[in-house]
Order: sequence, then C-alpha cells, then structure tokens
Amino acid sequence: GVNPDLASERLAASFSVELLTASLDGGAERTRGRRAVVQAVESDPVFSQENQYFQSQNEKYEAAVRRAVYLQKKIREMGWTQNGPEVQDICRCLSGDIALVLHRVFMRSISVLGSDKQIAKWIPLATDYQIIGSYAQTELGHGTYLQGLETTAVFDTATQEFILNTPKISAMKWWPGDMGRSATHTVVFAQLYVHGKCYGVHPFILQIRSLEDHSPRPGVTVGDIGPKMNFQHTDNGFLLLQNVRVPRENMLSKFCEVQPDGTYVRWGSQKINYFTMTSVRISILSEEAIVPLMKACTIAIRYSAVRRQSKLKPGEPEAKILDYQTQQQKLLPQLATAYAFHFINTYLHELFNKGYQDIQAKNFDSLPELHAFSSGFKALITQHCTSGVEICLRACGGHGYSLLSGLPSLYTRIIASCIYEGENTVLLLQTARFLIKCFMAASAGQPVPPSVTYLSSVKSGKCPAKDKSDFLRPEIYLKAYEQMTVRLISSSATKLQHLIQSGVDKHNAWNQCTVQLEKAAKAHCHYITVKNFVEAVENLDNKAGIQKIMKHLCDLFALHGIFSNVGDFLYDGHLTAAHMDLVTASYLDLLAVIRKDAVPLVDAFDFTDKSLSSALGSYDGQVYQRLYEWAQKSPTNQQGNPAYEKYLKPLLQNTLSKL
Amino acid sequence: GVNPDLASERLAASFSVELLTASLDGGAERTRGRRAVVQAVESDPVFSQENQYFQSQNEKYEAAVRRAVYLQKKIREMGWTQNGPEVQDICRCLSGDIALVLHRVFMRSISVLGSDKQIAKWIPLATDYQIIGSYAQTELGHGTYLQGLETTAVFDTATQEFILNTPKISAMKWWPGDMGRSATHTVVFAQLYVHGKCYGVHPFILQIRSLEDHSPRPGVTVGDIGPKMNFQHTDNGFLLLQNVRVPRENMLSKFCEVQPDGTYVRWGSQKINYFTMTSVRISILSEEAIVPLMKACTIAIRYSAVRRQSKLKPGEPEAKILDYQTQQQKLLPQLATAYAFHFINTYLHELFNKGYQDIQAKNFDSLPELHAFSSGFKALITQHCTSGVEICLRACGGHGYSLLSGLPSLYTRIIASCIYEGENTVLLLQTARFLIKCFMAASAGQPVPPSVTYLSSVKSGKCPAKDKSDFLRPEIYLKAYEQMTVRLISSSATKLQHLIQSGVDKHNAWNQCTVQLEKAAKAHCHYITVKNFVEAVENLDNKAGIQKIMKHLCDLFALHGIFSNVGDFLYDGHLTAAHMDLVTASYLDLLAVIRKDAVPLVDAFDFTDKSLSSALGSYDGQVYQRLYEWAQKSPTNQQGNPAYEKYLKPLLQNTLSKL
Repeated sequence: GVNPDLASERLAASFSVELLTASLDGGAERTRGRRAVVQAVESDPVFSQENQYFQSQNEKYEAAVRRAVYLQKKIREMGWTQNGPEVQDICRCLSGDIALVLHRVFMRSISVLGSDKQIAKWIPLATDYQIIGSYAQTELGHGTYLQGLETTAVFDTATQEFILNTPKISAMKWWPGDMGRSATHTVVFAQLYVHGKCYGVHPFILQIRSLEDHSPRPGVTVGDIGPKMNFQHTDNGFLLLQNVRVPRENMLSKFCEVQPDGTYVRWGSQKINYFTMTSVRISILSEEAIVPLMKACTIAIRYSAVRRQSKLKPGEPEAKILDYQTQQQKLLPQLATAYAFHFINTYLHELFNKGYQDIQAKNFDSLPELHAFSSGFKALITQHCTSGVEICLRACGGHGYSLLSGLPSLYTRIIASCIYEGENTVLLLQTARFLIKCFMAASAGQPVPPSVTYLSSVKSGKCPAKDKSDFLRPEIYLKAYEQMTVRLISSSATKLQHLIQSGVDKHNAWNQCTVQLEKAAKAHCHYITVKNFVEAVENLDNKAGIQKIMKHLCDLFALHGIFSNVGDFLYDGHLTAAHMDLVTASYLDLLAVIRKDAVPLVDAFDFTDKSLSSALGSYDGQVYQRLYEWAQKSPTNQQGNPAYEKYLKPLLQNTLSKL
Repeated sequence: GVNPDLASERLAASFSVELLTASLDGGAERTRGRRAVVQAVESDPVFSQENQYFQSQNEKYEAAVRRAVYLQKKIREMGWTQNGPEVQDICRCLSGDIALVLHRVFMRSISVLGSDKQIAKWIPLATDYQIIGSYAQTELGHGTYLQGLETTAVFDTATQEFILNTPKISAMKWWPGDMGRSATHTVVFAQLYVHGKCYGVHPFILQIRSLEDHSPRPGVTVGDIGPKMNFQHTDNGFLLLQNVRVPRENMLSKFCEVQPDGTYVRWGSQKINYFTMTSVRISILSEEAIVPLMKACTIAIRYSAVRRQSKLKPGEPEAKILDYQTQQQKLLPQLATAYAFHFINTYLHELFNKGYQDIQAKNFDSLPELHAFSSGFKALITQHCTSGVEICLRACGGHGYSLLSGLPSLYTRIIASCIYEGENTVLLLQTARFLIKCFMAASAGQPVPPSVTYLSSVKSGKCPAKDKSDFLRPEIYLKAYEQMTVRLISSSATKLQHLIQSGVDKHNAWNQCTVQLEKAAKAHCHYITVKNFVEAVENLDNKAGIQKIMKHLCDLFALHGIFSNVGDFLYDGHLTAAHMDLVTASYLDLLAVIRKDAVPLVDAFDFTDKSLSSALGSYDGQVYQRLYEWAQKSPTNQQGNPAYEKYLKPLLQNTLSKL
C-alpha cells in the first residue's frame, strides 16, 4: 500500500496530474503510447536493471551490449524507426544504460560526410550491426580544440592508401565510446598530408579489429581507458596507430576528395557540418540533463514527504521534512527549473527544426544564432541540472548517499554532460562572442537576429513595483532580467573596447574579459528561459486546470533567479534594496504555495518505479522497507567474509576466555 | 623527468616552497618527522593503494581491514600514541582508506560515558582488537533528531537485564560503520524503560556476533547496507534486535544508573558529552575536508600547467589552460580557500584545546560559543571544500572524470562530510540560534562572547575606498564583511520579532525565517574566516619570505567572497556599484598575480604522488604517459570479453564475405 503520508499529498492536489502529464507529453495519445512501450520494456528481463547498483564495470558493459543488440532486434521486429518516439521512450526508462551509442554517431557521420557510394556501402552493414562502429575524434592531448589534433594521415600515391599514425602519446585517441572493447570500425579524424602539405583535419573509415576473431588489426593498439565516475557500461577506448593503411576510398568524401594523383579537391559547403555539431548539443539535453533532474526531483520530493525528522512545534508529531522552509528552498526551485527547461527544450527543438528546413532550402542566415543558442543553452541547462541533482542528493541526507537511493548514479552521470559535447566555459564564451557582435551591431543601428532584438530596445529606468505581489507580474520581472542582461553585455563590451584602445592586443583583451563575458552569456540564456516560460504559461490558456500551478512555478523560477543573483539586479539601481525585500517575501510565499502541490508536480513526470531505480523515490513511499530489502541483496551480504577469516579471527580467538 | 612546462613554473616561484611547507606543518622538524613516517608507510606493500580504482566493494573492505590491523601492530611496535602525529600522518597519506574507524568511536564513548569499572573491563580488550566495536546510534528513520530514536531497552528486574528491541522497521540501526561485517560488539543507543516509564535515550554495550565463529548472536539480525557513493571500504551496517538481553552492568553508567530494584539514578553533568560531540566536528575538518581540497587543488593546478589547449593568440603555440582567465577564476579561489581553512582550522583547534582545559576546571561558560563555532564551521568548511573539489574536477575536463585522475574519489567522499556528524543546514541553524541570542543581548547592552562582540560595536557608514588598491587593505574589506554580517543577523532578528508580534507562534515564525537565518550564520563564519586569515598573515611578519604571497591569497579569498555575493554587500549601500567595479578589478588583478605562484603554492602542501593517486597530479607532470600506463592495468583490459562472444560475434560472423 501507499504510505499514508504520500497518499495525503496526492489527495490535496490543486490540479489534475493526468492532464499535466498529457500536456508535457504533447497529448494524451502520446502518453498512452509511451506507457505501452515502457510497460513492454519493463516486463522484459533483458532490460531489467534490478542489480545495477551491485555490478562491476565488466558486468555493466556486458549487460549494456546485450540490451543494445536486443533493442535493435526489437526495432526490426516492431517496425519502429531508428530514432522514433518508441526508441526514445525506451532510452528514457533505461536511463541511457545501453551500449553502442557511438555506433549511431559513426553512422550519422558517414551519412552526413560520406559520398553516396560510401553511404551505400557502409550504412546497410552498420544498420544490422554487421560492423560495429565508433567515432574517434578526441585525443589524449586534445578535446575542445579540434584544429590541434595530432593524428596524421599521409597519402601514398604509390599504393593509393592513407598511412595513419599516432606520432606521439598525446595524439593517441582517447575517450571514444564503444571503441575500447566493441567496435570493429571507427571514423578516425586525422591531419591530412598530401605531398608534404597539410590540409587540416579529415575523417577516415578505419577497421580496427578483425572480423574473424576480434583481435586488433596489424599496427592497431586498442583498449579500454578504465574506470570513470559513471558510464561503466560504455567501453570508452584508446587507439594507437602505427603505419596503418586505409584505401583512398575510405576518406569520407562528400565535401572533398584526394584524387589518385594526390590532387586535393574541395566542393560544397561545410556549414552543414557545423549545424550537425550544433544540433547534437540540443538533442542530448532532454535525456542527459532534464530527465535526470526530473528524476532527482521525484525521488527527493517524494522522500521528503515521507521522511519525518524533528519537530516544528513541541508536543506535535515529528514533521515531514518537506515542511521545513530550508528543505523547500532546496528542492522547489529545482522543480521549477525542471519545468522551465522542459519548456525551453521544446522551444529549442522547434527552432532547430525550422533552422534545418531553412538550411535544406540553402538559407544559412540563422546559423550564427542557432550556434549561439545551442552553445549557451547546452552550458546553462547541463550546469543547472547538474547542480540541481546534487542539491536533491544532499537534501536526502545520509540515505541520499546510498547508491540504492538512485541519486548518486544520476549525479555521477549528469556531471559529465558539463564536459562532453563542448566544455561549458568554452561554449559560453562562444555565445558571448555572438552577443558582443550583436550588441555592437545594435549600437550601430544595424539589424540583429530575433533573439537579441532586446539589446537595441532597452531603456534604463526604475522598476515600478510597489508591493510584493507586483513581483508576480511577468512584465515586472522580465524587465528586470532584460535590463540586467543588457548591462552585463554592454559593460563587457565597454571593457573590451577600453582595453583594446589602451593598447592591449585584442586576444589578450578578450582573455581579460572572459570571466565577465561568461557571466553575460549565462544571463542571456537565463533571461530567454524565463521569457519562454512566461510565454509557455500564457499559451496554456486553454488548459485552465494546469495554467495556475504552472504560473506559480514560472514565478518561482524567475524570482529564485533574482534571489540568487541579487547583486546583478541591484547593481544599476533598476531594483533597490526595498525591492529585494519584496522579491524575497514573494519568493518565500511561493515556496509555501508550491509545497502543497510538490508531490503531484513530480508525479506528473510519470516515471515508473523501475525507471527511477530508487529505494527512496518509489510511488508508494515505502522507503525503509525497500532500503532494507535491497540492502540484503548486496554482494557484501551474499558472500563470505575473507577479511574476518584472515585478519580478525586471529585477534579474537582468545577473547572469550577473558570476558 | 619533470615535464618542462611544470619545471618552468617552479623556477619562477616568488617564495621558498620549503619554508612555506614548514610553516604549514608548524616547523621544519615536524616536516621531517612527517616525511619519515610517510616514507615508511609508502614503502610498505600493506598500505599500497595501487589498484584502488579497480577494486570491488568487497576487495576494498578486505584491504582496509588488513591495513587497520597492521597499523595497530605497527603502533604497538613503534610505541606511537593512539592518536599521535604519526598516526595522523599515516591517515593523511592513506586518505582515510582504513577500516575500524568506528571502533575508535566505540572506545571513546566507553571512555567518556562509562564508569571506571566499565572502562577497566572493556578498554584493554578493545585496544588490542580482542573485541571489535561499533557505535549504533543512527536509525533508518532517525539521524539528526536523537530524541526520536525508537529502539527500546526495557529493564527486567527479575533477570537484572535490559531487553533490547527494534519495535518497527524505521527503528532499525542503519549506517553504523564497522558494524555490517566486522564488529563483535557495539554501543547501542535506545530509549530506556523501567517499570513502564521512559527515561530517554541511553547507551548500552551489546555483543552482536559470536566470538567463536562470528555468527550473529541470538535475536540479532545484522548485515551490510550495501553500496554507497564512496566509503566502499567501510562496512556500514544494519542491526535489528528481537528480545536481545544485556546485563544491567552494560548500560554505560558514568552519569546515571539503573539500580537492581529499578530505581533510576542520575548524577554529574552531561555537558561534557555535549562537548565531545562538538569536538568531533572540529576534529574531522582537516582530514575529511581541508586535505581533500588541498589534494584536488594540487591535481587540478599541476594539470592546468601541463595541459595545453587552443591558442591565446593566432600563430603562438597552444596555451597552458592555467593561462586562461576563466581557468584561474575556477581554481585560484579554491587554492586561497584551502589556505584560509588551514588557518581557521588551527585557530579552531586552539580554541577547543583551551575550552577543554576550562571544562576540566569545571568552567562551562564557553560551551555555547564553542558549540556555535563547531556547528557553523563544520558546515561552512565542508560545504566550501566540497564545492571546491567539484570545481577542480570539472576544471580538468574529460580527464578529471576518469577515476585515474583521483578527483572523482575525492569528490564522492567529501560530499558525505556535508551530511555526517550533523547535516549542514541543521548545524547552521544552531549557529543562527546562538547569533540571534547574542544579537538580542548585545542590543540590550548585555555582554556577549568574544567572537560576537562585533555585533554591538558596528556603526553603519559608507566604505571609504576610492581606488582598486584600497580593496587590498584588510581594514576596508573586513569592515564590509562585518557590516554585511551584522545586517543579515539583525534583519533576521527583526523579521522574527515582527512575525511573533503579529501573532505567529514562535516555532512557525522561526521556520519562516530559516532561509535567511541559515544565510546569516554562513556570513558570520565566513567573516570570522577572513578575519582570522588577516591575523594569520600579520603573524607571519617574522617570515617575510612567505608573508607576501600569503597576503595575496588572503586578499583573493576576501575579494572572491565579495565578488561572489555582490548583493549582500550592495544591499545597504556600504559598498556602491562603483566600489564593486573596483573590487572586480582588484580581484581579477589578483588572479593574474597568484597564477604565477600557483604551482609552488600547491607543491607546498607536500603531498607525495602515492598519496595523491592521480595520473593528472603527479609531481613530474607526465600526465599522458601515466594515464596510458594505468589504463592498461584496468580489469577491462585484463580479462576476456564475454559480451563479444555472446552478443557481437553472432552478428559479425558473415560480415567478411560482404566487404
């Protein structure tokens, strides 16, 4: 049965959970479809994650490969599309614990960068796992800065082959997923040399393991890079190449080619590649950042409605920890953030779908804006989701620290999202570069892309709020965000100009402004997220049943942002200290309001117990019973105790006679 | 050889590393002693941690038990004292990966709470590991709130025994270290009932396992709680008791006793217990929080001086990532924090030693202040060190995410320090309660303890700084901190009073102020830390060789605190927006200054490569070579690949014919 403390929370809901779930899914029909797929997956033992917290790296890898192979079989049987909604639903409930993910990147890179002939040869083989692919770009000494890659590919006209080499240890490929133990092939990125001239980094299809016995091919040294903070199920690999030859046809040649005589020819635009990288950053946000935050909120909020500790008043029973203001201040802003990011994610996907259509119609105008969006929001969202998951973990006290809570595995995985697909600081500085350009253009009266028109329209002025309820008016807080953001961008631009005018060269000047530029880029993305949340709530006007609670969450998200960055808002006097007292009062009031609906708000995310894999976060709230049951299954209780036999027994053998 | 990029950093040092190390150690002689012990330990294979990143929970536990037993033997052989400097040095280089730590708490609780007779009986047995003890306080349903413990001990006059029971699942003991698989005995805390009357929580010595075969005693269910985020080497346990009887003599009875007829007698003061709990919080800070932050800084800063990525200027070689302002902004404040906490830790230990002397002389006057100190600083220090370690981890990009960097294990361990020995929010609110009391007393003109006299002496006013160099004057920034702290405390007190006067009952009123109270308590501890750092630097006037660089670090610590909490300082107008521009300029200047000495500043922490266990952080900076060597030892490379045989081979078997 459901723990009565949790049941009572649900009875008190101010809205229909089912309606909200359907709205998040994009319709009730989609919810039904998703649930059917999840049901099918969870009843299948191949996808069971029951013992995940007790498995070694080798065991996790094996289970993940098994799942990947089985999923492919299932996709074929059911006639699903490769990246269709069913597959996404399955990944959502498997929390990404599946192998051969880089195999898909291998396929995508061939599809995008390969000639028709190359596509016709390799894609069918890869689709059926008749080869296993990987994607070998990052090196021991090079991640972010692709131009610095050191692997070489020298064209040999005599044999019509490229000779691939790892000239020094920092050039060794390092991190590619699926490469350490699984892949037979990889797309490897190397500096192309023809007749002694370097043409920059190019991709080559390379076979790394025998198709007969899986042993490394001659000249190839390949293996696993060892344990990581998470992703134990993925065989991230290293690859060292010594005079490995690949035929001329294996250089991916949609946009360029080395002809038999060594002539290098380039055609078409590479801008589409740029767009691919950009769109990958957006595509990971839901599964790798927002969903984990939603799961962490679900676990921590349900647990906080069941856990009772200490007394709010003497003589009363112990209080639910969710009734403490400090606990609300930890968890409820994370909940609001999860919703805010759900809405901005939807917006970003629409933006990119539209951008993709434009590009197919050969209109590349929106690329700079899309690139700035994808960089900045990837950084903002992964950063906030990571710190949100950490807050949820710590808010569960000691039990949150047990792997059985499900929170440590969420945290150790999500933190990687701040690094992969572009390190967040580097990405924010790319957004900042775009913002500075736009700001200069706007200042000069030139047109700017739609998302930054606010840079030219702002007038400074005092905030007109007089009462704490004024801060529940979106136009009031949006104006404050807008003005703060413009100021951060304009003051960075001013500092940059001053430095350059005072004789500092422009690269050094840029470096000296980067702490402030990074902050400006974050503020821009934060502002857009608030604005988008406001618009999303307005668009719910046909769903009165959930609009009200979504408005509360939107206000909380906005005011939490002000409450957490008071200095940025006070700085230019748009808000005063007296305003801040009103913001604080409104913000603390909102915590108490949203607390009442906190459990229904996480129920609406509609995670099954199996996909949460949490002793603390299950729907029925039977926390202690489940912790005890799961602990008993631990290998520490299932096996003997050699440490006792070897080290303790000899010490204890004469004790009995002395007691 | 040493990587030239790292060697050049050391050549440029502005101070003597050896002198700074000796100063941190408290003298050159102490440095020599420590190095000798570390040398002895690291050459002993029993203490080797070479394969730690590849071990399972069971393997880590076994190695930790082995080390603990061996260390005890060594202590006896060498004639060291149980908690002497040598043992602390060993623990520092083992990073706490040793078992039977709770055995010491078992002994301490008997020493403090037991009668002379109990001490005479149990302590000699425990000293020689003839019994293995644990400390069973926390329950599944109760951590922080001890009064709520549910385990019962009912006195049976007929048999002169206490009957111990776990009345429901939430009453099960949960988390006690060394209990899951090692302990033969434990001190268990239970609600004492005599003739139907409850006398509150009392401690009892309980045998939980047979001394013959280590099986659980009748009525005892005991086991391991399973995997955690770290501390895999510790067998945290659960304990369920069903009518387990212990003799009357086993209730620890220094302060109270149940007489044979059931009469409950209490004598002496319990205040000393209070002091014990308080001092434990201080005693863990160095090893569990500050040393891990120092290690993380060492790893991240050395790596950042070796790692080159991208170019600061076109045409130049790739730049050391430590030369990017954003990287400096991540790492250097953490370095300054590590030093700040080193000094405040010394101060706290002196304060507590003095307090202990007072208490032995029956003077308990300083207890409330000491309690407020230990609670607040435990929270502040563990919080900042945890986030500092996380920043270091992320600043190392992908390689920081590999266990081989040594950073994930530091992070997953240190985060526990925010929860154990008192959850940080709960602790900060205890400090806040003390501060509010003192503030009320000061406002009423009554005397207050020495650490909070600033509450009565403050006058508001404008900051006189006119130039960025003014913010390098301690009196300027100390005044800003002081005024900000007083305002946070006074405004919380005012809000509390207003709520009570408006009819809210005092417990609810307190709860409604806790977000602000927690912040006020943090600000107080932060202010004291800055003040203490300033004084420590002043006291270095006989060590001119290091005073200058310590002054820079102190300034950076202080200005980083302002830069990160601008709103709190702007709020009442003591600092203006123009001042903030000066603070920012001074702060960014300091980053560039300290960057020059960053490597020598971490070298001075004097960690050996073995104690860092980091492929990124070794003294010689041979990062890539070491990552590759260590990865090859991973079990993922040492064993076969059943996943290939079972799942991939069948898919690949016909591929060759198609290529």
